[in-house]
Amino acid sequence: MPLLCALGTRAGALSRQLLRGRSHERRLHSGITTTLLGGAHGAAPQRYFARDGTPISPWHDVPLAAGSGGSAGEYHMVCEIPRWTNAKLEIDTAAPLNPIVHDTKDGRLRHVANVFPYKGYIWNYGALPQTFEDPHTTDRETGFAGDGDPIDVLEVGSALCAEGSVHRVKVLAVLALIDGAETDWKVLAIRADDPLAPQLNDVDDLERHMPGLVAATVDWFTHYKAPDGKPPNRWAFDGRPRDAAYARGVIAAAHEAWKRLVRAPTGELAL
Amino acid sequence: MPLLCALGTRAGALSRQLLRGRSHERRLHSGITTTLLGGAHGAAPQRYFARDGTPISPWHDVPLAAGSGGSAGEYHMVCEIPRWTNAKLEIDTAAPLNPIVHDTKDGRLRHVANVFPYKGYIWNYGALPQTFEDPHTTDRETGFAGDGDPIDVLEVGSALCAEGSVHRVKVLAVLALIDGAETDWKVLAIRADDPLAPQLNDVDDLERHMPGLVAATVDWFTHYKAPDGKPPNRWAFDGRPRDAAYARGVIAAAHEAWKRLVRAPTGELAL
Repeated sequence: MPLLCALGTRAGALSRQLLRGRSHERRLHSGITTTLLGGAHGAAPQRYFARDGTPISPWHDVPLAAGSGGSAGEYHMVCEIPRWTNAKLEIDTAAPLNPIVHDTKDGRLRHVANVFPYKGYIWNYGALPQTFEDPHTTDRETGFAGDGDPIDVLEVGSALCAEGSVHRVKVLAVLALIDGAETDWKVLAIRADDPLAPQLNDVDDLERHMPGLVAATVDWFTHYKAPDGKPPNRWAFDGRPRDAAYARGVIAAAHEAWKRLVRAPTGELAL
Repeated sequence: MPLLCALGTRAGALSRQLLRGRSHERRLHSGITTTLLGGAHGAAPQRYFARDGTPISPWHDVPLAAGSGGSAGEYHMVCEIPRWTNAKLEIDTAAPLNPIVHDTKDGRLRHVANVFPYKGYIWNYGALPQTFEDPHTTDRETGFAGDGDPIDVLEVGSALCAEGSVHRVKVLAVLALIDGAETDWKVLAIRADDPLAPQLNDVDDLERHMPGLVAATVDWFTHYKAPDGKPPNRWAFDGRPRDAAYARGVIAAAHEAWKRLVRAPTGELAL
C-alpha cells in the first residue's frame, strides 16, 4: 500500500488535480507519469508523480532496488536536473507527495552559476528513492551527520535525462562532500541502458573510460558556490572516491535510515 | 555604396523576400536587422542581414573598424554561434548576400560534439567582417596559406551573443590553428560593453582574469573533431597565443586581402 494512503485533505485535493491534469502528463518509466501543476503568475511549478494513474511520492513510493536487486548494484534513480542545465530542481521532502520543485533562496528561483570550464551541472543529477541521510546520526568515517535528504546521484551516461524520469542505474563509486557541517554523499552511477554501461562496473573503470571525470566532479563541487560568495566546499577522504562496494554500503545504510524515518512515530515524516 | 548593388536577379528576389519577411525580423545593432528565410520541409534556414531596410552582406557591408577605429583595437564582430551551443552556423561566403547558414556535411546538418569537460562552443563564436584569409598567400610565420574564410573570433565576455548580432569587440590575442594544411587564425576578443572589458587589454590580462581559458581553447580545438574520427588539430607557435598587437597585424593583413578580393577582376568574389 503506497504511503500516500496516509495523506490528508491537502494531498486529496492534489490527487484530484493530478487526475484532471492529463494535458501536461509525461509517461516516463513502467507506468510512472509526471504532471506539472502550478507555475502561474511567475510562481515555480511542481512536478507530481503518479503510477498507473495513482499519485505517488518519488521519494517514498519508487522502490530503491531495480531489477534483480541489491547485490547486482542496480538501483532506481529519479532524475531531478538534466546535464548542462542550471536550475536547482529537487524533490521537496517537506511537501505532501514530494513533488520536484525549483528551489528558491531569498524568494528567488535558484540557479547554479557556470563555473569555468563547465556549463551547468556536468552530469544528470538526481536522487535515490527510499534513502535518507539521517541528520541525527554522525557518520563514523566522515565525522558528520547527514543532510536530511535522499542520497544524490551523479549519472554519467551519454543521454540527457528528463526531469522527473526514473532510470535503472549501476553504482560505480561515491564521494563524500562535506557541505557546511553535513555529510552529503554523491554517488557516481551510470544508466544500465547506456552503451558504455557493460564496461563500467567500479571506480577504476570510471577513470579508465572517462578520464578526468572524478577530478572534474570534485573541482565542480568544491567551487560551485563561489559566485555566491561562499567558501570552497570540503571533502571527506581528501576528495578521493570510494569504490562501488563502499557506495552500496552507504546506500544500504541510508535505506535503513529511510525505513526508520517512515516508521517513526514522532511526526518527523513529511507526508 | 553597398556591394549588394552588384547583385543580379537571384539576390533581387531575396531582397523582395527580405522586405516582406518582417514577422521574423530581429533588430540587433545600429540599424542592422536579420531575417530567417527558408527552413521548411527539414531544410536549414538562412539568416539574411539588412541595414535600415536595405539588404546587406554581413561579410562585406559591416565595417571592420568599430568606433574610433583601428589603433584602439576595436572591431565589429558578427556572432555566428552563441556559447554553449553545438550547431555549426557560419556566414556562407559563396551565397548571394552571405547569409548565416547551418553547415552541412554529407547532406546532414553539422553539430560539434561535446568534448569533455566542455559543452558545445566555449565562447561566443563569430567572424570579423571585411577580412579574408587568403588561400593563395602563404603566411610567412605559420608556413601555411589561409582557409578562404573571414577571420574567426572567440568572444570571451559573460553575455551570450545572439546568432546574427553585431558587436564591438576589443582584440586581446590570437592563436594560429593549422587545420589540414591551412592557417585558421582564432582571434580572442571581448565585447567592448562587457563589465570586464576595461580590465582586459592584452593577452596577459586574459590569463590573469580568466585563468585557464587559453589552455582550454587550445585543448578544445585540438580535439573537437576527434568524435568524427579526425586526428588532433595542430598549431603554429606551439599553440601559444600572440599578443593584441600581433593580432591587430593579422587582422590588418586579412583586411587588405579582403580589399584585394572584392576588387578582383577574376570573378573570384562570391557576390
